[in-house]
Amino acid sequence: MAASAGPEIERLIALLSKLPGLGPRSGRRAALALLKKRDTLLAPLAAAMADAQAKVKTCSTCGSLDTTNPCAVCSDGSRDVRLLCVVEEVGSVWAMERGGSFKGRYHVLGGLLSALDGVGPETLRVGELLARVSSGEVAEVILALPATVDGQTTAHYLADRLAQTNVPVTMLARGVPVGGDLDWLDDGTIAQALRARRPA
Amino acid sequence: MAASAGPEIERLIALLSKLPGLGPRSGRRAALALLKKRDTLLAPLAAAMADAQAKVKTCSTCGSLDTTNPCAVCSDGSRDVRLLCVVEEVGSVWAMERGGSFKGRYHVLGGLLSALDGVGPETLRVGELLARVSSGEVAEVILALPATVDGQTTAHYLADRLAQTNVPVTMLARGVPVGGDLDWLDDGTIAQALRARRPA
Repeated sequence: MAASAGPEIERLIALLSKLPGLGPRSGRRAALALLKKRDTLLAPLAAAMADAQAKVKTCSTCGSLDTTNPCAVCSDGSRDVRLLCVVEEVGSVWAMERGGSFKGRYHVLGGLLSALDGVGPETLRVGELLARVSSGEVAEVILALPATVDGQTTAHYLADRLAQTNVPVTMLARGVPVGGDLDWLDDGTIAQALRARRPA
Repeated sequence: MAASAGPEIERLIALLSKLPGLGPRSGRRAALALLKKRDTLLAPLAAAMADAQAKVKTCSTCGSLDTTNPCAVCSDGSRDVRLLCVVEEVGSVWAMERGGSFKGRYHVLGGLLSALDGVGPETLRVGELLARVSSGEVAEVILALPATVDGQTTAHYLADRLAQTNVPVTMLARGVPVGGDLDWLDDGTIAQALRARRPA
């Protein structure tokens, strides 16, 4: 398409293709949709991005993203400071908040330990976590890390490190998800749900 | 996530979710990726969008998109003005140009006739097409429309209307695509390829 579209369009396609979930082909489709709706989609999105770029920052307390620092969760006095939920990513914070059942605060690790990818504790916000928990405010640390090998390795590592603080450390329960049909569940989930069975 | 992220982030997610290929969930993932790479991805993409918004326009001759009007294809003197390729969309122009084997010019219809969606000839650039073909420069009109019901309805309608100009009208060949394994082809394609068979 070298001759058919200017470098501005090529550049837009190249950058859109870098978004997760989009590739070269869908990036082109997204660019086309934007260019066809220049006033209703392209202009507002460009403005929203510039706005986010100017205003969004990392919360120095929990490591989440917000337009204020400390973020809305950390500065919300109605939330329980005694509950600290450790998550991998900002996306996990959003997922927990959508659920709406957690009323404590968060600590974003910024990744998971991974021997394969060479991610050690020093690249994660582990020191900050130990400092927060040692400060005395926290009464329970909830590890809400993914149920993957790296997630569980990280959870065990954190539980070990947190043992010195004498603050109880818990993990999310494992079992059948709401709406989960046994037919569609993997063997591992069924085995875990069976092992953790409870009185009906 | 109302309490966890500011309205700026919500707005970014809502707009990203409108891109083709993205939904609410992947829009959130895209927003997260952008916010994590504020300097390397968010800022350049916002700039590229503002740039495209300011510079890209619709070519008044062929209906394609470019930063110049007439577009690069229409103003390229080395291209054959006698060949006019009629396509549905700007995306089709990009696809043809990637192929690189067509050296004529384009006419973008801006859609397809569709009784179901209430798209009639007056909403497409049919009048402009007839005017261009009647001007005398064009020696062949190639209908490169999709092999769908609407695409073929539109092709037949255009062939009818173009008959009055006495300019030959052709269509893209049908058959087995390059690399196409018979096992994976639909019955319709196999039937068409068989009907249009040629000496080996």
